[in-house]
Amino acid sequence: MHSISQLSQIFDHYVRQQSFNRKPASLYEPVDYIIQLGGKRLRPLLVLMAAELFDKHPESVLPQAYAIELFHNFSLIHDDIMDEAPLRRGKDTVHKKYNRNTAILSGDVMLVWAYEYLLKHNPAKTAELIKVFNQTAMEVCEGQQLDMEFEQRMPTVDEYIEMITLKTAVLLGGALRIGALLSEAVESDAKHLYEFGTNTGIAFQLLDDLLDSFGTAESFGKRIGGDIVQNKKTILLISAIAKANAAQQDELKYWMNETQQDPLKIEAVKKLFKETGAEEAARALVHDYHQKAILALNAIQVSDARKSVLTEFSEMLLQRIH
Amino acid sequence: MHSISQLSQIFDHYVRQQSFNRKPASLYEPVDYIIQLGGKRLRPLLVLMAAELFDKHPESVLPQAYAIELFHNFSLIHDDIMDEAPLRRGKDTVHKKYNRNTAILSGDVMLVWAYEYLLKHNPAKTAELIKVFNQTAMEVCEGQQLDMEFEQRMPTVDEYIEMITLKTAVLLGGALRIGALLSEAVESDAKHLYEFGTNTGIAFQLLDDLLDSFGTAESFGKRIGGDIVQNKKTILLISAIAKANAAQQDELKYWMNETQQDPLKIEAVKKLFKETGAEEAARALVHDYHQKAILALNAIQVSDARKSVLTEFSEMLLQRIH
Repeated sequence: MHSISQLSQIFDHYVRQQSFNRKPASLYEPVDYIIQLGGKRLRPLLVLMAAELFDKHPESVLPQAYAIELFHNFSLIHDDIMDEAPLRRGKDTVHKKYNRNTAILSGDVMLVWAYEYLLKHNPAKTAELIKVFNQTAMEVCEGQQLDMEFEQRMPTVDEYIEMITLKTAVLLGGALRIGALLSEAVESDAKHLYEFGTNTGIAFQLLDDLLDSFGTAESFGKRIGGDIVQNKKTILLISAIAKANAAQQDELKYWMNETQQDPLKIEAVKKLFKETGAEEAARALVHDYHQKAILALNAIQVSDARKSVLTEFSEMLLQRIH
Repeated sequence: MHSISQLSQIFDHYVRQQSFNRKPASLYEPVDYIIQLGGKRLRPLLVLMAAELFDKHPESVLPQAYAIELFHNFSLIHDDIMDEAPLRRGKDTVHKKYNRNTAILSGDVMLVWAYEYLLKHNPAKTAELIKVFNQTAMEVCEGQQLDMEFEQRMPTVDEYIEMITLKTAVLLGGALRIGALLSEAVESDAKHLYEFGTNTGIAFQLLDDLLDSFGTAESFGKRIGGDIVQNKKTILLISAIAKANAAQQDELKYWMNETQQDPLKIEAVKKLFKETGAEEAARALVHDYHQKAILALNAIQVSDARKSVLTEFSEMLLQRIH
């Protein structure tokens, strides 16, 4: 069994060896650019971990792991255009460094290449592989569209959880499911592994919302309160609005209209998140989805020793709660 | 054997029965909108014709024909964003009717759905099917990028032909090849059929350039001279610039800088297209690619009677030359 950091090295080595070797350069340079920006490469690592869980050598599923990384980066390029984001991983976004049209088209061709890598080395069960990938890819698009819809209206807590499930969590589940499929895991184990990934993803995203307001700058790695300043529709704000009494509603609205006094706003809104019970509810949700993930992992018919990397992985994502 | 119009009815009936049945509506409405705009649906018909050529019932390849139509419309949505085009088939483009972000994302999800339809009814040779589709899809993206590159510089005649081959022609070839693959045609026949489609597509695109300057309004269906007014880099302009002597170069440049006197400009530039030999060269190219297409079709080991629909199809596309 490999550790996360060993798998990470194996994958990074593979990434460095890949080359599209196609023209025009102006189409493929942005692809190389975003791939080389790096990041944690969590999603492709899940393909490798799933394969190893079911006794398949992780090296043998590297192309499919790379397919997941290509898909993820395609979605980042297009999301960044939609959000008009200037930075990604501290560097210029693709549409900023090149231009919007190139970013659209380089993203498109990356999605096609994801399918090409899915089929590299002629894996068995081609059709099932493509279908799992299609389902995941559709859901990611649907989640992104919901996210844009919610800019225009306030979603319910359930709608918000559906959105983050689609936009973020199913890709973790899908990556694991693809690794399981390539390893010929039994269907019930593959299903549990998918549930583990998806629930871990939901918990991770909710925790991210929580830490933006209640974390410490060290544990979170970003300035605390950014979401509050921007009135971002996080689980905390959505839940606070749902739970607030009339006076708390007025207070929340007052602060949401406030754009000058950032430090005061952050403190006041955090107080409201606590008083309305939104913070507690969000912590309970993180706990619940984390528990669901653990139960799903426990249900897989494989020794605990083999599962330890996945346990470590979910702890790594979710440890920041303490 | 079915006629083109019978195949067209069969396909239209299938299109009307399809429904994505997924949410959010805001993502799928634009997909329905562009599909319902119609158009000639030439590309999916080629899948049906190829199947029937090799004795497979066209009804059995409808999902794969629909995959080609979805792909084509995905590329139209994204191209229209890039070109900032307001109209498509006389109606609002998707980004104009909805908005740019929705157009990006609805296009993305259509591409995923194209792969989903490719696999409907579990066709044999899944991996080959996906690989032919991937190759075609990559080339279409590459052609579109070249087209955008050529807005910034004047291509050579060869570069221009490469661009239209990738952007337009390979999808005709690819649609036929997919139909052949589903019918288990022998490889040499599938290859010839691909050549027939691609060369027909190149001839069609070059003819379109010719007719924009030298057609009649009736045969062309658009106002004559639009490309000249816009200084569009067509085969005629590219070839005229390559062939012009110093005096003709100066005259061409003069008219390209002229934006006020449209009727005079159209006549003067047409005269230059004739005098430089660009018109004649373009007509020769159309003839050559049409001949290549016919030779490829002739080489297929199937009776002439079975090929008659494809002959009719290429005549329909290319008859306007006379």
